[in-house]
Parts: sequence; C-alpha cells; structure tokens
Amino acid sequence: MTVDIAQSKARGIASIYNSAVAAWAIAALWEIGALDELHRNRTLDAADFARRGGLDVQSTTGLFRALSAVGLVLRQDTVVTPLDGFDEMYRDKSFFHWLGRGSAELFQQIPAVLRTENRTGDHYRRDPAAIAYACREIDQVTYAPTFRAALDRVDFPFTRVADLGCGSGARLMQILDRYPGTTGIGVDIARPSIDVAVKEAAEAGFAERAEFLQGDVLRLERRPEYDDVELLTCFMMGHDFWPRENCVATLRRLREVFPAARRLLIGDATRTSLPDTELPVFTLGFELGHDLMGTFLPTIEDWQSVFEEGGWELVRTNRIEMTVGEVIFELA
Amino acid sequence: MTVDIAQSKARGIASIYNSAVAAWAIAALWEIGALDELHRNRTLDAADFARRGGLDVQSTTGLFRALSAVGLVLRQDTVVTPLDGFDEMYRDKSFFHWLGRGSAELFQQIPAVLRTENRTGDHYRRDPAAIAYACREIDQVTYAPTFRAALDRVDFPFTRVADLGCGSGARLMQILDRYPGTTGIGVDIARPSIDVAVKEAAEAGFAERAEFLQGDVLRLERRPEYDDVELLTCFMMGHDFWPRENCVATLRRLREVFPAARRLLIGDATRTSLPDTELPVFTLGFELGHDLMGTFLPTIEDWQSVFEEGGWELVRTNRIEMTVGEVIFELA
Repeated sequence: MTVDIAQSKARGIASIYNSAVAAWAIAALWEIGALDELHRNRTLDAADFARRGGLDVQSTTGLFRALSAVGLVLRQDTVVTPLDGFDEMYRDKSFFHWLGRGSAELFQQIPAVLRTENRTGDHYRRDPAAIAYACREIDQVTYAPTFRAALDRVDFPFTRVADLGCGSGARLMQILDRYPGTTGIGVDIARPSIDVAVKEAAEAGFAERAEFLQGDVLRLERRPEYDDVELLTCFMMGHDFWPRENCVATLRRLREVFPAARRLLIGDATRTSLPDTELPVFTLGFELGHDLMGTFLPTIEDWQSVFEEGGWELVRTNRIEMTVGEVIFELA
Repeated sequence: MTVDIAQSKARGIASIYNSAVAAWAIAALWEIGALDELHRNRTLDAADFARRGGLDVQSTTGLFRALSAVGLVLRQDTVVTPLDGFDEMYRDKSFFHWLGRGSAELFQQIPAVLRTENRTGDHYRRDPAAIAYACREIDQVTYAPTFRAALDRVDFPFTRVADLGCGSGARLMQILDRYPGTTGIGVDIARPSIDVAVKEAAEAGFAERAEFLQGDVLRLERRPEYDDVELLTCFMMGHDFWPRENCVATLRRLREVFPAARRLLIGDATRTSLPDTELPVFTLGFELGHDLMGTFLPTIEDWQSVFEEGGWELVRTNRIEMTVGEVIFELA
C-alpha cells in the first residue's frame, strides 16, 4: 500500500513533466500539419508523414510519443490513432501554441523578468509571428460565434463601421463581407499592421469599402472619416484602456470622436477568479504571462463599473468564458 | 453522465496545459530560492518572499498559483504550504529546470529543428549556463551515491586517477578528496572548462594533486602523464563514443593510452524501452531532446555488446534507472 502511494505520487510528478513536453509537441505538430491530418484521417504513420514533409523521422515519432505519454493518442511504433482526449486537445491546440511557441522566451526568462529592477521598457521577448499564428485561431474558437451573434442583434441599420485596434484588418473585412453596402475604417497603432491590412483589403476586393488609418486608439482626435460611423468594434485590446480613470476617459472620448456611434462592441479577455484547481486551458498561462509582462487585466466587474461613467449604456454582457474569461460587451 | 465525462476530458486537457505552465514555475521558483525556502520552512508568503528579494509580487504569487493548479501546494492568497507531491517534485526540480530553463529554445524551435535540410551544423540553441546549473544537481540526485559505492568496490589500491570529459573538474576533486594520497588528471575538449577546473582546483587546495589537459577523449594519444593511471572514470559523455565501431575503437584505445588502467567506470544515460505511459520524470524530454539534436543514445544492451570486443571485462552493471536509464558500468 505504501509502495502504491509512493508510485502514484511519482506518476503525478512524471505526469506534470511529460505534460510539459507534450505541450511543446502539440504546438509543433499543429504547425507542421500533423495534427490536422491525424484529426481528419483518424490514423497517421509518423515516419511516413516525416518523409513526405522532409522532416526527421525519429524526432517526429518522438513528438507523438509525447502525446502518447499523456494519453492523447495510442502509439504502435510509428503509427498513431487518437484517444478520447484528442479532439478536445485539437480544439484547444492554439492555446498550446501561444504558450510553447509564442511565449516560450517570456516563461524561460522568468527569473530575470521577475526582478523589479528589470521591469522597465522592453524587459521581455516573445515571438510576434508565432503569437499572431496562434491568435488567428484563438479568435475563431473563442470570440467568432458570439461576435456574429452580437452583430446580428444590432437593432438599427448601419452603413459605416470602425474597428479599433484592427491589426491586419481581418475583423473589419469579415464585417464588410457579412454586411454588403457598408463601408469601414480600421485604426491601429502599428504601421506594419496597417500596411498589411491595406494590401490584404485590396487583394480581397475591399479597396473601395475599407480604409485603414494609423492612430493610437487611446488618444484619438475627431476626423471627418469618423463622423458617420454608427458601429464601433474593439477586440483584444480593451485591457489597454485601463487603469480605471483612463478607461472612463477613453470611453467618453470615443463618444466625442465618433458622434454618430450607436453601438460599441468590446471583446476581450478578463481576469478570472476561479479556484486554482479549476482553471481551464489557457487562463493560468495567459494571466501569469500578463503578470510577467506587467499588463493589467480587468475583471468583468471592473468593466461593468465604468460604462455608465464612460457615457455608455450596457445592453448585454456575453460571457464566453471558454478559457480566459472572454467577454463581449454590447454598449449603446 | 455525458456531461461528467465531457468535463473530465476538459479537465484532462487543462491539466496538461497547466502542467506545462507549472513546469516553468518550478524551474524559476527553484532558481530564485523559493522552493528551497518552502521545502525548509513548510510555509511561505509569496508576497513577503518577493519583497525581500526585489521581485514582482503579483508574478511571484502567480508562479505559486501554477503549483497550486497542479496540486503541489495549497495556496491561500499569497501564503502557500506543501501538499503531498511537493517533496517528490522538490527532489526532481533539476529535471524541470533542464527542460524549461536550459532547453526551452530547442523545444520552442521544434518546427524548424525537425526539417532535414536544417539539421547540419549548429541547428539548435540551448542555454549552456542553465544546463550546467541543472546538471550539477542532476549528477547529485542520480549518479553520486552509486558512483561512491562503485569507487568503494575497487578491489586494488590506486594512487592515480583520470577523469575523461572532466568538465570543470568537480568529479576529479571529489575522488581526490575521498582518497588522500592519490593524484589525478582531468581531460576535456573544452578550453573554458579546463581553465575553470585549474582555477577551482587551486582554490580547493588540489593544485599539487590535480592537473587538467585539453584533449579529445575520442582521439587520445599516449602521454607520460597517462602511464601510471590505474583508475579511469568517464561520466555523461559515453554516448559520444558511439556508433558501435567507433565505440569499440575508443574502448581499445583507452587500454593502449592508459596501459596501467585496471578499472574503467562509465556512467551515462541510456535509451529506455518503457511503455509511453510509464515514462518517469526526465526520460521523455531527455530522449526527445537528443533526437531533436541528432545525438545517438545507446541502450544498456548496446553497451554490453561492445565491452569484450573493446578489450574490457564487465565486472558489474549498476542500473540506476532513476529517470533516463542511468547506468554505471564497472569494467576491468
């Protein structure tokens, strides 16, 4: 009995260790296309897959050994088949990628990042391309369905939209695609993102309907282009509005800068208050990562306490809460 | 019932994800001294610890939240106490450090490292200082007790020792310390390690008894300094002897270069053949890491098949098998 308990504890630590290796394997296997193929075909020969893709056979098989070690696949030599948890993991693969590919350097450097004396300026590094790769899918699995529903609930006809913090413009183009006859403006602080947005909008045939302006959403000034905007969207940057007094000021300013705006949709992650042992995928890494980076994350209650003072009426709170307390506020 | 199963699956994926975050937290908390303090005092206030050490309070608390998420500690706000698995994890902390601090870049870059076209020259990076930090303790928790016992079993008096692949000389100095009246030679291919070894041996009062020579253990030539060596030790580099024909040649050459040698102790990790779901701490990361780096790892059986041909008699095989199939071969 004593032996059993000791072994069970040892298995527990081994399970933590092997999960860490498996997390890297999930990120890599997604990026090289192996997860998609296994999800589709329900069986995959790692050696065959590696040879087809010009990859090292032993290492590729080793990645599936890591998935097998944590019970996600059954492995017989180089041939693997999904087990029960595989499809759940497949849905969540982008969160593992955010952690192991996009944010690995931040977490590796924790001992240095923790030091108060180091926490100024660029005190950490992440991989922006990998973060962008993961976030495209994170947006799809978290916000997209709720966002579409929130758009459908807009109870007035609109012809002009602005997306604040538009990145490379994907969200704005989705709206224009969904609502023929509308025009839109994307605003982002990053010049490279604006350049990509202009190029991709032209390629997608939205050159006449979409324009993109470089600007700091936290310090916008009135412009003629903003005068007729009826619908505002702002995703995955709302936490930058904070702390509280700045958030109130920014919300008020949006009313002044966009005088015709009748609806504002804010979608963002919020800080959760779940017990440590009930944290879902992503939350623990996302919140620790933002603590390490020194980024404030408001709770849903924090948000709900500023809208009235900021000059907006809260129409509806959509708690997605899939992983990191995602929420979409519909404001009028 | 269906709901229960679905939740249990989701918890499984969350547990894998949170374990990956916890692995980084273990590595960092060890390096900043927090694990040692919690292990010693059985309670720790993360906020107090952070303030004393000039560390960010919220991030430091977040690291313990990660340990709490996987059941290693109980956390009440900033105060933590160890749970059942804590001491087991504490014993294994150096393996988490090897993974999350020393080898993170290798694992982060898997998609590039896998590509056959990239697998030449320096196709990966790790953090050598962090690897060395972890390996000092890995040596202590794995080889040290078995190594001491193997030394005690040497059944002839010896006065001169050589450690092959001596690094910064710690092992050679341990032997000299344990056996007064002996002298020793350390051989290593890395000039910086030799320089550190010379300096540390002088500081430890071994200047008269220890000398260090730069040399490639795989291509040694006879030297007067080697003539009287009776005991050879070689740790954590034996896998570099391989593939097989090279290994046989190196073992034979050691007999020629050290004509008076009567015992050779080889300690190294070996490739395991455990079922995927029974892999202990370290093995999965260690073997995948070496596959990614393109380093051959022999099995114990591989080793046992070369000794006779290499001119040595196997006196005893010490299977440590704590984590990565560690073994010490005693050869005469």
